[in-house]
Amino acid sequence: MIIVLKPHTSEENIHRVENLVKKHGLDTHLVQGTGMTIIGCIGDTTLIDPRQFEIDTCVDKVMHVQEPYKLANRAFHPEDSIIDVSGVKIGGEHLGLIAGPCSVESYEQVLEIAQKAKTSGANLLRGGAFKPRTSPYAFQGLGLEGLDILCAVREEVGLPIVTELMSSKYLDVFNEKVDLIQIGARNMQNFDLLKELGQVDRPILLKRGLNATYEEWIMSAEYIMASGNENVILCERGIRTFETFTRNTLDLQCIPVLRSKTHLPIIIDPSHAGGKWWLVEPMAKAAVAAGADGLMIEVHNNPEAALCDGAQSLKPEKYDVLLQQVRQIAEVVGKKF
Amino acid sequence: MIIVLKPHTSEENIHRVENLVKKHGLDTHLVQGTGMTIIGCIGDTTLIDPRQFEIDTCVDKVMHVQEPYKLANRAFHPEDSIIDVSGVKIGGEHLGLIAGPCSVESYEQVLEIAQKAKTSGANLLRGGAFKPRTSPYAFQGLGLEGLDILCAVREEVGLPIVTELMSSKYLDVFNEKVDLIQIGARNMQNFDLLKELGQVDRPILLKRGLNATYEEWIMSAEYIMASGNENVILCERGIRTFETFTRNTLDLQCIPVLRSKTHLPIIIDPSHAGGKWWLVEPMAKAAVAAGADGLMIEVHNNPEAALCDGAQSLKPEKYDVLLQQVRQIAEVVGKKF
Amino acid sequence: MIIVLKPHTSEENIHRVENLVKKHGLDTHLVQGTGMTIIGCIGDTTLIDPRQFEIDTCVDKVMHVQEPYKLANRAFHPEDSIIDVSGVKIGGEHLGLIAGPCSVESYEQVLEIAQKAKTSGANLLRGGAFKPRTSPYAFQGLGLEGLDILCAVREEVGLPIVTELMSSKYLDVFNEKVDLIQIGARNMQNFDLLKELGQVDRPILLKRGLNATYEEWIMSAEYIMASGNENVILCERGIRTFETFTRNTLDLQCIPVLRSKTHLPIIIDPSHAGGKWWLVEPMAKAAVAAGADGLMIEVHNNPEAALCDGAQSLKPEKYDVLLQQVRQIAEVVGKKF
Amino acid sequence: MIIVLKPHTSEENIHRVENLVKKHGLDTHLVQGTGMTIIGCIGDTTLIDPRQFEIDTCVDKVMHVQEPYKLANRAFHPEDSIIDVSGVKIGGEHLGLIAGPCSVESYEQVLEIAQKAKTSGANLLRGGAFKPRTSPYAFQGLGLEGLDILCAVREEVGLPIVTELMSSKYLDVFNEKVDLIQIGARNMQNFDLLKELGQVDRPILLKRGLNATYEEWIMSAEYIMASGNENVILCERGIRTFETFTRNTLDLQCIPVLRSKTHLPIIIDPSHAGGKWWLVEPMAKAAVAAGADGLMIEVHNNPEAALCDGAQSLKPEKYDVLLQQVRQIAEVVGKKF
Repeated sequence: MIIVLKPHTSEENIHRVENLVKKHGLDTHLVQGTGMTIIGCIGDTTLIDPRQFEIDTCVDKVMHVQEPYKLANRAFHPEDSIIDVSGVKIGGEHLGLIAGPCSVESYEQVLEIAQKAKTSGANLLRGGAFKPRTSPYAFQGLGLEGLDILCAVREEVGLPIVTELMSSKYLDVFNEKVDLIQIGARNMQNFDLLKELGQVDRPILLKRGLNATYEEWIMSAEYIMASGNENVILCERGIRTFETFTRNTLDLQCIPVLRSKTHLPIIIDPSHAGGKWWLVEPMAKAAVAAGADGLMIEVHNNPEAALCDGAQSLKPEKYDVLLQQVRQIAEVVGKKF
Repeated sequence: MIIVLKPHTSEENIHRVENLVKKHGLDTHLVQGTGMTIIGCIGDTTLIDPRQFEIDTCVDKVMHVQEPYKLANRAFHPEDSIIDVSGVKIGGEHLGLIAGPCSVESYEQVLEIAQKAKTSGANLLRGGAFKPRTSPYAFQGLGLEGLDILCAVREEVGLPIVTELMSSKYLDVFNEKVDLIQIGARNMQNFDLLKELGQVDRPILLKRGLNATYEEWIMSAEYIMASGNENVILCERGIRTFETFTRNTLDLQCIPVLRSKTHLPIIIDPSHAGGKWWLVEPMAKAAVAAGADGLMIEVHNNPEAALCDGAQSLKPEKYDVLLQQVRQIAEVVGKKF
Repeated sequence: MIIVLKPHTSEENIHRVENLVKKHGLDTHLVQGTGMTIIGCIGDTTLIDPRQFEIDTCVDKVMHVQEPYKLANRAFHPEDSIIDVSGVKIGGEHLGLIAGPCSVESYEQVLEIAQKAKTSGANLLRGGAFKPRTSPYAFQGLGLEGLDILCAVREEVGLPIVTELMSSKYLDVFNEKVDLIQIGARNMQNFDLLKELGQVDRPILLKRGLNATYEEWIMSAEYIMASGNENVILCERGIRTFETFTRNTLDLQCIPVLRSKTHLPIIIDPSHAGGKWWLVEPMAKAAVAAGADGLMIEVHNNPEAALCDGAQSLKPEKYDVLLQQVRQIAEVVGKKF
Repeated sequence: MIIVLKPHTSEENIHRVENLVKKHGLDTHLVQGTGMTIIGCIGDTTLIDPRQFEIDTCVDKVMHVQEPYKLANRAFHPEDSIIDVSGVKIGGEHLGLIAGPCSVESYEQVLEIAQKAKTSGANLLRGGAFKPRTSPYAFQGLGLEGLDILCAVREEVGLPIVTELMSSKYLDVFNEKVDLIQIGARNMQNFDLLKELGQVDRPILLKRGLNATYEEWIMSAEYIMASGNENVILCERGIRTFETFTRNTLDLQCIPVLRSKTHLPIIIDPSHAGGKWWLVEPMAKAAVAAGADGLMIEVHNNPEAALCDGAQSLKPEKYDVLLQQVRQIAEVVGKKF
């Protein structure tokens, strides 16, 4: 941490601020330039709020130097984390290919989609049982009944299941039944929920908040890890920008950037990002070309009649064609599925 | 709702889409222009997801005409709502003046601040017991102990208390002890929590999400109202923009805009928005000049030693001077406290 | 400037980077912490691109400490600049009240508006002769003819005129005829134009770009000042945010923030920001309460028939009522007009 | 265009608004629903500012249905435009591969880079002679001397040249000497300059503004086309988001979206977007996988000593490796170079 003092700060005040810093268990190192004095703070500053010093009348600004996360930090864990989801590996050279309907509607629906997606190459089944909706009047999902349908289809088809947890109320039942627990964008900073996920045995798929920075996103993973669960997969699903034609803007730069900052796997969800099915194919290929560790794609057997987000779902036939192209790109960049 | 068809859509397809609409219980009305056909959908479209129709190969776009909220809508409730918080009125000509420390640190601290703030004119006491922090390693608040301190100070000083609820786990204790339950920006779309607030007897202070649009914000109020609790106060606390010098950018246009869209009171929090104490005074005056129904301001007796957000806290003396100026502006715009 | 080296950088490399810095005429000061080395760079770093050092394989990041502007910097010019626009003072306690139609349409139109606005208290007349429009098919303004109309009305009514320059082609004619030359938001970083404004005798009204940070905005003022013209007034006209109900979001925090960073006056344009006439009144009052040095407001005698932006124009009668209220608020905050 | 009237608008007022619309040469069609009346406006609404109607006291909102551009619109020009840049085709199956230094520094520098880049597969040479810089104190480019260096290298190496035009002052010399004239992000809405580009014989590379929507970007192309020059290539170079670790966020969704809206080719510049050389390789591959018509990449023989933006430049050896991988991806998606 670096504290920049205001020009013309007196010797007395410089020492006063130095002493404030030392009270927090840090060492200080003074840099005196032409009309500018800087205090370098040496020690573990992870736990210190820099804004505490900014209030001092002699302080101009405080700048953080160290990254505020540890367990998720690649600096302290240089190898890629490979997360095992009930036998399916994600990370390293292993692509996680998650497919399924936005909402669970019926056993028959999920079964048909799961069978076809598996044949195409998918290795995980998704489906929403609890749905976050901006309107209280919109379809909120089948709830526990939806979860049971997913379990029944898993039994039949053999794909581990991924579904979203919205409240700690259902933590135990998710821990028992769900292979990969998804936390949605709007709960990325529901800190109470994140802490409780530390108690869970299952890996967590942590979606990026609509406007989260990379650091905020990693800090949310750090919350889960610091609470006891180090099996976290990050999932980019588009960020909000000024463009209104698409639902959100997919940020594929996050792949190489996060790769450099953290050892956790990074999965891309092109369905939610664009919000239009015809954007899924080009963006899925781009994601794999950029080095993604997996894809989360909405597949629906009858998108026109979907209870939710049909507009962004691929039909199983299109998903099949897509995976063939994805496989070719994956080979070029050294990934497999 | 208006459905714009793609150019050169055949008569047959036009009728097909019309029938899709009718299946949802709506009437249709066809507008055929030069190379463009539009289907006007007549009826209650609040419950209909427009994206369902966008998937049709003949549909170019779907536009919503009606606002998706009802209980919060001024169109159906033309008078200003005046919310009673344990005897203190907020809304109409009544300004709610909430003051207190960011975090509850001790009984003595809260007592001193509360007494001084009350003398200056504050009519509600704030203080964080449970603190949402981006880092799992930062101070998370005193929890239930902090809540008890607030209650003890209320007993002594006679100001109703406002504090943030982060998890439904504590819903019962908040309902019993807290006069105005605050929901923070990061939980504005924690839909499960919003639904549970419908069961509570206490009024809710709903902070705007960091990048929520006005409609999303009102929809979150609608969630609470639709679940059974119509006593909601909206609180603007700054939105995220590209400016990094300030913590957030305070959006005062929200006051007249929300006034036109909803009957709920609107309070402004200039402390969190700017993140610097010297921005609070000009922005608080501006907020009242623009017609705000109240101010939420951090006041701390020793900001340099605050455990959290000292940089944005006013000392009681400065708060006192501010309220004198606020009173003059309030008179010009027809408000009082 | 501060250079943070990567962990475990060797002594040899530390010295190598120090020498790179010294080649730019700077002194260095080493801060060695636990697993982290920082090089403080002492001297004038205004002319140095920090990204030049970031490329080095041993450098983790480079942080600027000094502000990159000088002439506009309050640190080197502590008093408020008061700009004289053909006899009308703006800055300090003097409010500049600019009023007039979005576009110049006819002599009669401008004359009527100017006379009424002057009676209400306006001290400068605005009117667009050259109009920046996003569509090539939209009305582009009357051009030089519009400029002549403004000059004729100035002759008659006695208000100095403000109008927008879009191209250096008309620099000479603007320098001859226009009292205050406006540079629009979309040209805020038209660096070639900014440089040419340094050659002009007239003061410049520099509008903020749609997404400019405070620093970028001040840097554009610095361009003009460094080219020879120190009479610059800044004008906030709303920034782009995710909200689509309003045209832009007015950022009133810019007033106190810019006040601390620069000595240049700051004027607020609530008409363009909100894009709706009924937002002008509350936001104009808020701007003055927050300490603005002036207001730029669109006034039109027949907004329904305006060739451009009628939706955001006040009728002269409403402008008159507004200025009465503004006068009351101005008194509270120590301004006058 | 659709005009939504306020609830309970009288018959008389409905007819009054209809007549307003008809005065603009449009036909109207009334849709009357439960408590809501809509006026469909039939005819060419490209030239009509919808905000003109919004001001009416009976109008709730006005929604555009037709796209406001024609010449750039794929609806009226279904085939991909293939732009010929002095013999090099861009568009359709032809990839344009633009490489070269950020700034022209010397003949030897540009020559070496151009020769190596050509050997790797580049078919166009870039280099900045006039540089847009946020600081007036930063290196502004060699100007006309830089342009002459580019021409001399073109003579020697045989690659057409691309360079940025910042002012209409140099329009004639650019028209004479430059094969592809680049317009930078900050000038995307310099409407005067766009109009003058209509008079030029050379194709134009139009970079996206830092926060331009797709429609605004296409409208700027439409400006050039409507002024007489239909040879426009669009170039995405990253948009501003809240992320500060990268310079900008690359929006690859623009490729399929623009493909559906316009027939103009789309090129991606991953160097400026990320601002870090190690992001170029993954993002270049992703861009081609998503269907881009070309790549614009900064290549520098000595990035550490570059006068500008060395941090985002690839060395020729890395560029060579990149193009080999790009070639493999291009084959998968049916492109060649």
